[in-house]
Amino acid sequence: MALLMFAVEDNSHPSGLIILGSGAYLPRRRVASTEVDARLGWETGTTQARFGLEARHVAEGEETSSYMAEQAARQALDAAGLQVSDLDLILGACGVMEQAIPSTASLVQHRLGLGRSGIPAYDVNATCLSFIQALDLAEMKIRLGQAKHVLVFSADIASVGLDWNEPDVAAIFGDGAAAIVVSNGGTGLLASRFETYSEGRDACVLAGGGTRITAAIDPEAAAQASYFRMDGKVAFRVASRYLPRFLRRLFDEAGVSKQDVDCVIPHQASGLALAHGLNRHGFDPDKVVQTFADYGNQIATSIPMALHCAITSGQLRRGDLALLIGTSAGISIGGVLVRY
Amino acid sequence: MALLMFAVEDNSHPSGLIILGSGAYLPRRRVASTEVDARLGWETGTTQARFGLEARHVAEGEETSSYMAEQAARQALDAAGLQVSDLDLILGACGVMEQAIPSTASLVQHRLGLGRSGIPAYDVNATCLSFIQALDLAEMKIRLGQAKHVLVFSADIASVGLDWNEPDVAAIFGDGAAAIVVSNGGTGLLASRFETYSEGRDACVLAGGGTRITAAIDPEAAAQASYFRMDGKVAFRVASRYLPRFLRRLFDEAGVSKQDVDCVIPHQASGLALAHGLNRHGFDPDKVVQTFADYGNQIATSIPMALHCAITSGQLRRGDLALLIGTSAGISIGGVLVRY
Repeated sequence: MALLMFAVEDNSHPSGLIILGSGAYLPRRRVASTEVDARLGWETGTTQARFGLEARHVAEGEETSSYMAEQAARQALDAAGLQVSDLDLILGACGVMEQAIPSTASLVQHRLGLGRSGIPAYDVNATCLSFIQALDLAEMKIRLGQAKHVLVFSADIASVGLDWNEPDVAAIFGDGAAAIVVSNGGTGLLASRFETYSEGRDACVLAGGGTRITAAIDPEAAAQASYFRMDGKVAFRVASRYLPRFLRRLFDEAGVSKQDVDCVIPHQASGLALAHGLNRHGFDPDKVVQTFADYGNQIATSIPMALHCAITSGQLRRGDLALLIGTSAGISIGGVLVRY
Repeated sequence: MALLMFAVEDNSHPSGLIILGSGAYLPRRRVASTEVDARLGWETGTTQARFGLEARHVAEGEETSSYMAEQAARQALDAAGLQVSDLDLILGACGVMEQAIPSTASLVQHRLGLGRSGIPAYDVNATCLSFIQALDLAEMKIRLGQAKHVLVFSADIASVGLDWNEPDVAAIFGDGAAAIVVSNGGTGLLASRFETYSEGRDACVLAGGGTRITAAIDPEAAAQASYFRMDGKVAFRVASRYLPRFLRRLFDEAGVSKQDVDCVIPHQASGLALAHGLNRHGFDPDKVVQTFADYGNQIATSIPMALHCAITSGQLRRGDLALLIGTSAGISIGGVLVRY
């Protein structure tokens, strides 16, 4: 270990990232699970009992992706003790962008009053893993001395893509945004790992929004393609097949063991997957941050939202080793180990 | 411990990327500018005379973004002398994705027969600058020893987003795909630089495709929002204001001068911008690669397509210093200096 430290210092770019501040935004309208029951014609309490979901928030009116991201970003900057002008990179890490062109990061740059700043702003798209993918990118920029203060935000409005004829999918998603500011001078990511298994590409699909189906050319197909389709069983099967090996490799790379992890911050895919899955893979349920019951599955926003909640609640403390982990459409698996 | 020491050695002798191979795909249907004239009710020769455009290609049928990208990727792998299984990262760098979820990179991974490989695959979205943004990312992965062989592809189908009531925009865009394979052991990027000025965020917009306007909720708005809108004058004004300073900073960072550049590979925004603009900024027009006349503005595909043409035509030779540069929606300016 001493050898490694020496070599890193010798490399003239001695430091990795440190998470300096976090922020979050929840849409004003909170929808209790009993409202979901009513909408679906289910007996009161069904959504709660079946999915472990008490409520989720739904964006309305001015609450666009970039609006929510701006609120979360300002909170993260405040927590970090930094000004917007201190940033030298803005990374958008949404599950779905606000619009195709330009990037959501450009829109957020404008909302932060940085329209003439030149601070680079662009998006990374890895669906529910966009946040940790962007975190990995921020770490590289900082480690190579190309950035000092990076804003990473996620903002998602799942509610516009829910087909209420598919209640098991429609019932569990929520809207929101979360952001962090990372700076140089930290120990950085102990390890980061991403694996994609496109054999499961059809398990989670939003077929619209791109070049294949457009609303001007085929309005009916585009309307259908604006709903998110998920075959949860296939997604779970593909992810489960590779997750144990993924975790072994991630921990081997970091040189730490599962027992060293103080706080597990997972993608909040569903309440049940959290409770069962992570326990089965050897993580103490008490260490797992859970936001699903209150906010639902917030797509890419789930992980930074859980991170923000862990920081503000004191569940994650300075010096703690955190595991950020999730699966996404693709199917992809991603994880990072970072000391907070 | 042996692993750690190996990693240490690897880190203390960092190498950057080398461009090993390139490939491209042009849709089978070639549309001559006289066809554009006919469609717009213009006198024959108008498109050619006004925009300097002789033809562009239009994707049809099976020629989806991921299909075209696969063809370009296989050609790039062949040119690099590598197998698909040699890859350890696949970066999608389209202007607009094939669909919102999952990433275009996942779809291409599948088409390459890598569905069970685990090779990470995700997208970067910086509109017309996505390719050089992804190249910068590949360079960091290689420099940090986290990847050896990276596929970067762009694929764009501009034709589905053209409003023929806006002839000055509709006339100049073309479809296609291009890809490169980069590997470790090269000298890497001498410099990379990106600046975003969201004061110009409204100059180039594709308002659909995301969370703000969807075809199920508002079909008419979604149809309108599936057309690309451009105010070329505003885009040009914002980009021009910052381009001289951008170029000074990029060349200062690289420690080379404009005269050292052997080959300029620009985004093919328009024929006129190329002819006037780059000459005005001090680059010899003979060194500028031009594909616009034959292929039109291919969005993010323009830069890798021009790179591929420069390599295959012999305009770019081993050891040459290349400048890849462009502007994009955002408004962003991006550039890299790389020795081929």
